[in-house]
Amino acid sequence: MDIDDTEKTVGSDDIFATAHAMADAARVAVLEHFRAEGLTAQNKTATGFDPVTAADRAAERAILDILQDRRPHDALFGEEFGARPGTSGLTWVVDPIDGTRAFLSGAPTWGVLIALRDADGPIYGIIDQPYINERFEGGLGRARLVGPQGERRLKVRGDRPLAQSILFSTFPEVGTAQERAGFMRVAEAVQLVRYGMDCYAYALLAAGQIDLVIEAGLNSYDIQAPIAVIKAAGGIVTDWEGGPAHEGGRVLAAAGRQQHAEALALLQGIG
Amino acid sequence: MDIDDTEKTVGSDDIFATAHAMADAARVAVLEHFRAEGLTAQNKTATGFDPVTAADRAAERAILDILQDRRPHDALFGEEFGARPGTSGLTWVVDPIDGTRAFLSGAPTWGVLIALRDADGPIYGIIDQPYINERFEGGLGRARLVGPQGERRLKVRGDRPLAQSILFSTFPEVGTAQERAGFMRVAEAVQLVRYGMDCYAYALLAAGQIDLVIEAGLNSYDIQAPIAVIKAAGGIVTDWEGGPAHEGGRVLAAAGRQQHAEALALLQGIG
Repeated sequence: MDIDDTEKTVGSDDIFATAHAMADAARVAVLEHFRAEGLTAQNKTATGFDPVTAADRAAERAILDILQDRRPHDALFGEEFGARPGTSGLTWVVDPIDGTRAFLSGAPTWGVLIALRDADGPIYGIIDQPYINERFEGGLGRARLVGPQGERRLKVRGDRPLAQSILFSTFPEVGTAQERAGFMRVAEAVQLVRYGMDCYAYALLAAGQIDLVIEAGLNSYDIQAPIAVIKAAGGIVTDWEGGPAHEGGRVLAAAGRQQHAEALALLQGIG
Repeated sequence: MDIDDTEKTVGSDDIFATAHAMADAARVAVLEHFRAEGLTAQNKTATGFDPVTAADRAAERAILDILQDRRPHDALFGEEFGARPGTSGLTWVVDPIDGTRAFLSGAPTWGVLIALRDADGPIYGIIDQPYINERFEGGLGRARLVGPQGERRLKVRGDRPLAQSILFSTFPEVGTAQERAGFMRVAEAVQLVRYGMDCYAYALLAAGQIDLVIEAGLNSYDIQAPIAVIKAAGGIVTDWEGGPAHEGGRVLAAAGRQQHAEALALLQGIG
């Protein structure tokens, strides 16, 4: 641990406690609505299917209550409620239900995303799956999964060639036609491609199960918690140019430098 | 319940007990290997990626032991061990891990499939998800889910137009180019398409969460348990011509007659 990391762990116990309180409260709020009869989606935009559920809003309200009670000087940025300013230099970045389409379908691959960031990006994050009772956590010295099989250390698979790699993305469309073309170059080079996991794919990468997650069109609140968890587990998350990904957009997450380098070249059309 | 159904429920308590004993044993055998370090896949065929794990084989062996102990006169048909003959006229049709690719990726969307069939097709089935601790069960008067939210009755959503329907399939490729074209006609008519759920999609349909599952190239052991569970929940499962689907091939599962009729027409290119 270098000096910078040591400084960041000052006060981390309170951060852990706050984050877990947020995740616990979100679980209760969200599970009340998961697979409930009469659950309906509202369209946020006229252009597409973007459901927002009562669960989404109840969870973010519960998270906001906890923040105001425990760490009122931190800022909050969330999908549903926008930005709430703070004075500490730290911002909680929250997506109460990442994967609302999975949620509405009853599939347990959505998650509650809670991240803490400073000016440089995320320093800690939780990916929580309430229905499975699984919590992936990383940053500030932690890298762990607590779930049906107990507690485990999160650790990525490490280097392996694309030909032996497993790639995940949420939708086969990926993004624009150009983005899809880049994705397909990687998809054709790997052993196995799977779709439909939302944030759960990043959790699987941190847990050492898969090699790559490639997506486009993400928002910052979609990716900050996954970045913290994957980095803590030893993985790499960048945009498709190899730069920072924490503001969203195009994301390439990898379980090793080899997969990252090979996928990056193919995404850029130089592989 | 008509006379035929009444006859079929004779002895059903022993069938239920045997099926749950099989599912319980499979859970233990399979979870020992799920997300275990060093898990490797063997290729069954030279033509494609078709992993068979130690878990798959251990589970089927455990199921066979239970059958020989409890109902030695029933036949068994399983993916790994082939056909074991019987004299009762009843056959257990078993797929220890439906969704081996999901299993190898650590995703909790695979399942243990256990069905009981007579000469006409499946009369009872279980879709079990050991990691989530969820068991979907249907037939011989039962239609229920036991899982993290307790016990619930399985009941499909019922009729709704395709424009309000949710469609699932495991792979976006679906099958042949012609099969994919038929699938895409339905995909373009529905509200939402999701991929990647394996047998879990059929469970979601039986639980009233989604409207349609369309797949091609299935084996009989992939579909017999889903058919029993979905029919018990009030749904419809046929092939793409509206005929029986329990021998595998192309499958159309629907939560109501309306979705089924509209999807069938589009699959056949007459919609």
